[in-house]
Amino acid sequence: MSRSATDRPLRFTVAHRSAVCNARLGCVETLHGSFDTPAFMPVGTRGSIKGIAPHMVAGIGAQIVLNNTYHLLLRPGPELVARMGGVHRFMNWDGPILTDSGGYQAFSMAESNTLDDDGVTFKSIVDGSKIRMTPERAIGVQNLLGADIIMAFDDCPPSQRAGLAVEGIGPAIDPRLTSAVKRDSGKKGYDHAARLEIALERTRKWLERCQAAHERPHEQSLFGIVQGGTDLAMRTRSASDITGVDLPGYAIGGVAVGESTDDIARVVAHTAPMLPADKPRYLMGVGYERDLLVAVRAGVDMFDCVLPTRNGRNANAFTSGGQIRLRNKQFAEDAGPIEEGCDCPVCSPGTNGWRTPGGRAFSRGYLRHLFQAEEMLGPILVSLHNLRHFQRFMADVRRTVCSGDWDGLLARWPVAAPVVAAAVAAGEPESGDAALLGGETVGDLPDLSA
Amino acid sequence: MSRSATDRPLRFTVAHRSAVCNARLGCVETLHGSFDTPAFMPVGTRGSIKGIAPHMVAGIGAQIVLNNTYHLLLRPGPELVARMGGVHRFMNWDGPILTDSGGYQAFSMAESNTLDDDGVTFKSIVDGSKIRMTPERAIGVQNLLGADIIMAFDDCPPSQRAGLAVEGIGPAIDPRLTSAVKRDSGKKGYDHAARLEIALERTRKWLERCQAAHERPHEQSLFGIVQGGTDLAMRTRSASDITGVDLPGYAIGGVAVGESTDDIARVVAHTAPMLPADKPRYLMGVGYERDLLVAVRAGVDMFDCVLPTRNGRNANAFTSGGQIRLRNKQFAEDAGPIEEGCDCPVCSPGTNGWRTPGGRAFSRGYLRHLFQAEEMLGPILVSLHNLRHFQRFMADVRRTVCSGDWDGLLARWPVAAPVVAAAVAAGEPESGDAALLGGETVGDLPDLSA
Repeated sequence: MSRSATDRPLRFTVAHRSAVCNARLGCVETLHGSFDTPAFMPVGTRGSIKGIAPHMVAGIGAQIVLNNTYHLLLRPGPELVARMGGVHRFMNWDGPILTDSGGYQAFSMAESNTLDDDGVTFKSIVDGSKIRMTPERAIGVQNLLGADIIMAFDDCPPSQRAGLAVEGIGPAIDPRLTSAVKRDSGKKGYDHAARLEIALERTRKWLERCQAAHERPHEQSLFGIVQGGTDLAMRTRSASDITGVDLPGYAIGGVAVGESTDDIARVVAHTAPMLPADKPRYLMGVGYERDLLVAVRAGVDMFDCVLPTRNGRNANAFTSGGQIRLRNKQFAEDAGPIEEGCDCPVCSPGTNGWRTPGGRAFSRGYLRHLFQAEEMLGPILVSLHNLRHFQRFMADVRRTVCSGDWDGLLARWPVAAPVVAAAVAAGEPESGDAALLGGETVGDLPDLSA
Repeated sequence: MSRSATDRPLRFTVAHRSAVCNARLGCVETLHGSFDTPAFMPVGTRGSIKGIAPHMVAGIGAQIVLNNTYHLLLRPGPELVARMGGVHRFMNWDGPILTDSGGYQAFSMAESNTLDDDGVTFKSIVDGSKIRMTPERAIGVQNLLGADIIMAFDDCPPSQRAGLAVEGIGPAIDPRLTSAVKRDSGKKGYDHAARLEIALERTRKWLERCQAAHERPHEQSLFGIVQGGTDLAMRTRSASDITGVDLPGYAIGGVAVGESTDDIARVVAHTAPMLPADKPRYLMGVGYERDLLVAVRAGVDMFDCVLPTRNGRNANAFTSGGQIRLRNKQFAEDAGPIEEGCDCPVCSPGTNGWRTPGGRAFSRGYLRHLFQAEEMLGPILVSLHNLRHFQRFMADVRRTVCSGDWDGLLARWPVAAPVVAAAVAAGEPESGDAALLGGETVGDLPDLSA
């Protein structure tokens, strides 16, 4: 149900609370329709969910999508989007949209930006020009884009793990993450505690500036973001800072920046309950099924991640038992679908109105061929399957909030089971089958493109 | 209506003949369903119409698609396709399929093959290995793939224009075309008349070998191919050779290899009437709307071309008035559809079951953005529009065969009007609008990818 502009632009209703954990079933209403929570938002970085037309994004069950402010700022520019009628009309998506603030890109593109107490100066990846982002600018751009939910401009510090890796103490991490550590290091090296202190202070002050700059509060709902790394005391302090500002929703940031699954679980379990129970809680940039499940049980309502499309483009297909690498030779003559019982258009074309011979699925063998032949249809079909995979998983999670049968959920989705810590530490696949991978072993990098 | 395997595998019915030209309206029935003629076949080189799921190819009105034997031979290999149930099942397309023979690739990839009286030796573009193609092998591969219509293995000579260009006499042409001239030149240079003589002789002998090698005549219909370049006497001789073999259909080859629109028209008008009136006539690799129209009026029934998808990937959109370059800056804030009145899913989402805000089209401005941002959705959407453009055009052509109102057709499709010869000779765009291009000025290269 759409809401009139005279209401507040966001209404969150909790329909059911789990008796055994902090999970809740809810619904968020916006001026562009509603979405059920816990919700998984596909990412449309540049105003397009890569390779998938918007009606198909809706068709696989997504009710809200995310766009990246930083990327749309660079190209085509927010003024153009505004003149074209706003981002909904521009990308032809009539459901709810959330835009991030660009704060994450200040972290993920640290090799090409400078950070100070007033904001971030980016070097444009489009033409090399300098782009200045401040809290006021981040909100101004989001006001022009016109998404239903907009995010505060925050300061996301590197994870402690990244700092240790740079100093050669911790395990190796994505080398791109080290850029943020290097940018934020002084003459004496990287002082993680000091960096967290700065991040909290900036994030607090910047939120106040964001709220003051927000010119469309009757149409767009501003969410604040809690930072604090993996330091629970700092998370407590940041949550207090951020929830001290009255906003329609709150997010947990800085936990999809190189942390382990265990750290994500620990931080989320600690932080989520500190956010108001009557407002939606959003865990930014997460993630794998097991991370989503832990967060739902801690009381988180909204998620976004590029995994379905990014891994889909790389021929990695999600299944309830883990990802499979479709490029693997063992699938060359496999006539079966990606996953038996999946109701996506690729695995069940007939029930989705796709005419195929005998209503048969696109086979793993054909999908492998498409990737081997570098045919665009491969990334398209596997992205579509993966998007549906996450929507199916979240729909089952929502049912489980009501039923309380969390063991049943894990039986249907073994991939969401807690990781055996020893296996993760050793970096071993969880299966002897080279083509079947656990969530930790494929594509476990933070999203640096979004 | 599907046909039983006890019938001949192809039945061609002419429903109407034009009173003013040689055009005819017909229907070809195969074991995988029927298609209306004149028909335009989208090209699915490697078993996929680039970027478009098969049900969408059917959705925009295509009833038959083409696959390339050479490319499927290299990857994934015909034996694999056969074990997967044949090419229909492999690519999940339940309508008629035509496969070419690889003869065209012997021409278009001349820089990496050698030609003799027995066949062609290719250097694989996949792994550099040597691939020997003979008439027997070309048919054997097509028997394994299992298309409804299969093509004879022919010898396609370079065009006279290409020969003249290499000698510095004619206008410059696509440099890739010169490879075939160089391959086919002796110590005294390129002797076009002698080359045509060889091509005709090989094509005649190879057709007999193809027919003898064909192991599935009750399921697959073999078409012969007339060669002869732009020499009408040679076309007459080749037509006599080829139609001397009793086959379910005949094709005109070697006119989409660098010829001018005038030459295409002249050769087709001469050759088409020499092919049996009661069998389908197929003009291979053509082409632009005006070439299609001339050929239909000469009595041709079937066409294929990569233009819709190849030009779509390059942001060139077909309209009834000519192509538009969507990358052009003038479209940056254009809220209109690619073409007003077009019924494709991109221009008319609502009537195609695509949910968009207010049922609005994807705007030229948004499509331009997708290409500027290198988003896959741009090539997908413009390819889809272009595929529908050619199907809409052919549907109108079919109606016009009955109505006889050819002037009315040209009024609706100015792009199909005969080219003013002087403008083409001068190589000038036919419009002062830099973003609106005539058929001759964009992407006028032969397809070397297929």
